[in-house]
Amino acid sequence: MRFLHTADWHLGKKLNGFDLLADQQAILTQIQTIAAREQVDAMVIAGDLYDHHLPSETTVHLLNQTLQTINLDQKLPLLAISGNHDSAPRLATGSPWFENTAFYLHTQLAQAFEPVVLGDTQFFLLPYFEPFAARQYFDDPDLTTIAKAMQAVITKLKTLFLPDKKHVLVAHFFAAGGDIGSSETSLTIGGLDIVPLALLADFDYVALGHLHSKDALHQDRIRYSGAPLKFAVGEASQTKGVWIVDTAPFQAQFVPLHPLRDLRQLNASFETLLTPTFYEQQATDDYLAITLTDDDIIPNLRGRLQTIYPHLLQVRRATGAVQLTQATQAVAQLAPLDLLADYYQALNGTALTAAQQKWAQEQLRTVEKGEK
Amino acid sequence: MRFLHTADWHLGKKLNGFDLLADQQAILTQIQTIAAREQVDAMVIAGDLYDHHLPSETTVHLLNQTLQTINLDQKLPLLAISGNHDSAPRLATGSPWFENTAFYLHTQLAQAFEPVVLGDTQFFLLPYFEPFAARQYFDDPDLTTIAKAMQAVITKLKTLFLPDKKHVLVAHFFAAGGDIGSSETSLTIGGLDIVPLALLADFDYVALGHLHSKDALHQDRIRYSGAPLKFAVGEASQTKGVWIVDTAPFQAQFVPLHPLRDLRQLNASFETLLTPTFYEQQATDDYLAITLTDDDIIPNLRGRLQTIYPHLLQVRRATGAVQLTQATQAVAQLAPLDLLADYYQALNGTALTAAQQKWAQEQLRTVEKGEK
Repeated sequence: MRFLHTADWHLGKKLNGFDLLADQQAILTQIQTIAAREQVDAMVIAGDLYDHHLPSETTVHLLNQTLQTINLDQKLPLLAISGNHDSAPRLATGSPWFENTAFYLHTQLAQAFEPVVLGDTQFFLLPYFEPFAARQYFDDPDLTTIAKAMQAVITKLKTLFLPDKKHVLVAHFFAAGGDIGSSETSLTIGGLDIVPLALLADFDYVALGHLHSKDALHQDRIRYSGAPLKFAVGEASQTKGVWIVDTAPFQAQFVPLHPLRDLRQLNASFETLLTPTFYEQQATDDYLAITLTDDDIIPNLRGRLQTIYPHLLQVRRATGAVQLTQATQAVAQLAPLDLLADYYQALNGTALTAAQQKWAQEQLRTVEKGEK
Repeated sequence: MRFLHTADWHLGKKLNGFDLLADQQAILTQIQTIAAREQVDAMVIAGDLYDHHLPSETTVHLLNQTLQTINLDQKLPLLAISGNHDSAPRLATGSPWFENTAFYLHTQLAQAFEPVVLGDTQFFLLPYFEPFAARQYFDDPDLTTIAKAMQAVITKLKTLFLPDKKHVLVAHFFAAGGDIGSSETSLTIGGLDIVPLALLADFDYVALGHLHSKDALHQDRIRYSGAPLKFAVGEASQTKGVWIVDTAPFQAQFVPLHPLRDLRQLNASFETLLTPTFYEQQATDDYLAITLTDDDIIPNLRGRLQTIYPHLLQVRRATGAVQLTQATQAVAQLAPLDLLADYYQALNGTALTAAQQKWAQEQLRTVEKGEK
């Protein structure tokens, strides 16, 4: 069995006000092309197909068309679950009919215990769920956290293992913690919503959704696919793509995706950014987070940059940004006036004057009095 | 071919703030029972399955469950279209898979021209559409009204008629106007959105949705099913139900539905309404529009009635109502002060005092000045 593992499509997502629909449309087409080229036997989508519980009509149309093309036109079996961004009842619409053409879309906890056998593999499709759903399903009031609930779920799933099949879990949660094989199985590790990796050790592969980086874990057999697109400036340096997973012999190969418009950080002076010899070398249509190396005040900064870089996400100042980072690290130790002084220094490159300090001190005192 | 014709379920509708979900659930179960008892070969739903473009999760779940039971459990072919209350793209979710089990759900104009043949009948499923969709489909800028668009649609549908089949149109619009066979085919009759009946004369049956009364037309072969429940006080006297239609020999039989709670008008004095010997003979759980025959001021009127009649929709005064109706007829001719005086008289049964008239006159003068 060879399958493609993707997740976190977040259809309908907006990025700093930009509608990503065209980007998502393009990346979904690319995923379909990869599935065909790699001759996979199935596609796994590990949750968060939509970005909202109430996607727009256009977004609904995009997902409907995509799933129709993959399953009905490409004739590719589909194994999908709902994530925390999906509305389970809405996403479930039509799902009882889908199974006629090997499209399994699970949106309720109980469906995790109806494994799907395709080729040499038993797939367990565990949708995102809240602890109350597990308390209800297992009739156990003690399942107050996802970690506790997941222990009950995994225990039950293992009773369903067919011994002559490979066992693949498709799920949408936050997995972390000790390495597999360590004795650390404490459920309190790292927080209430975190599922310890050790719990997942008996699966041949765990196809996860939820975290947006493929490198969120460092495990051979438990992987996040990551989102197919960069959805935040913080993800600018990440490589996005899908996993092509073979069950026997086991192998997972990462295939990168190439977005319609990349999301990049750009550090330069204002003058450079507006120089044709510079920007003609740039993919100016990319989503850009620009860090200006200038210190000067520049009127209509954003508007002027947008004439050349239409998908400008943000503009920051290099000096301010650097010093702010330093300030953030120490912020817990600082008195309010020192914090203000540091902030001013970071933004302006000069210290508060004596008069400014006096004024700030008075204001702070007034605020403090008001609180008592 | 024998089929059940229903429409205008309006799932998710609220009636004067009351959630109708339980009533709708019950009536849908009853429709399924009738379909089984009458041994129909198919069920036709002529639009407005939902009341809103964005139905709640609970409402989505109810429709999903209902359609699943009818088509997958009862194994009954389903022929459905979207109405003006439905979001076509949302309702379309899953529809390409439905046809595997003879569930045809058409939400786009183009799909009207893909007739469905079941038994001796060719069904044309024409969803609700706006004129712009027809202008686009026919590439004809002159189709500026539904009436004009419908002439193009019907003309094209007739070219698809299989001569050895019966021809049934399922549609969702406002049909009215001259009798069939009359020479009146003017498209301007009655307004831009009205489709003249003469256009529909060549079908063996037209299963309509949109108007909520089964008696909206007086035609043998063109019928509204009406809604399955009374959705307004003005519908209190209507009988709700479904049509059981046989194509050969043609016959349409109306089967009434029995709601969980009826919607009724009740005329009585306040004292009577609160007398046990009266209300113990009443289905007090019904949705009630009460007309009080009293003239007195009754403190906490609504609250006291609700202790006995929990689904109270409205309370009106008999005398006031009558006089208001008379006033309404003449309202165009009345000066503002006379209108106010009449309104006061209708509500209170006494005329404005001289002091009240003076105050009102001053207020009206202030308002009139403000306008200039």
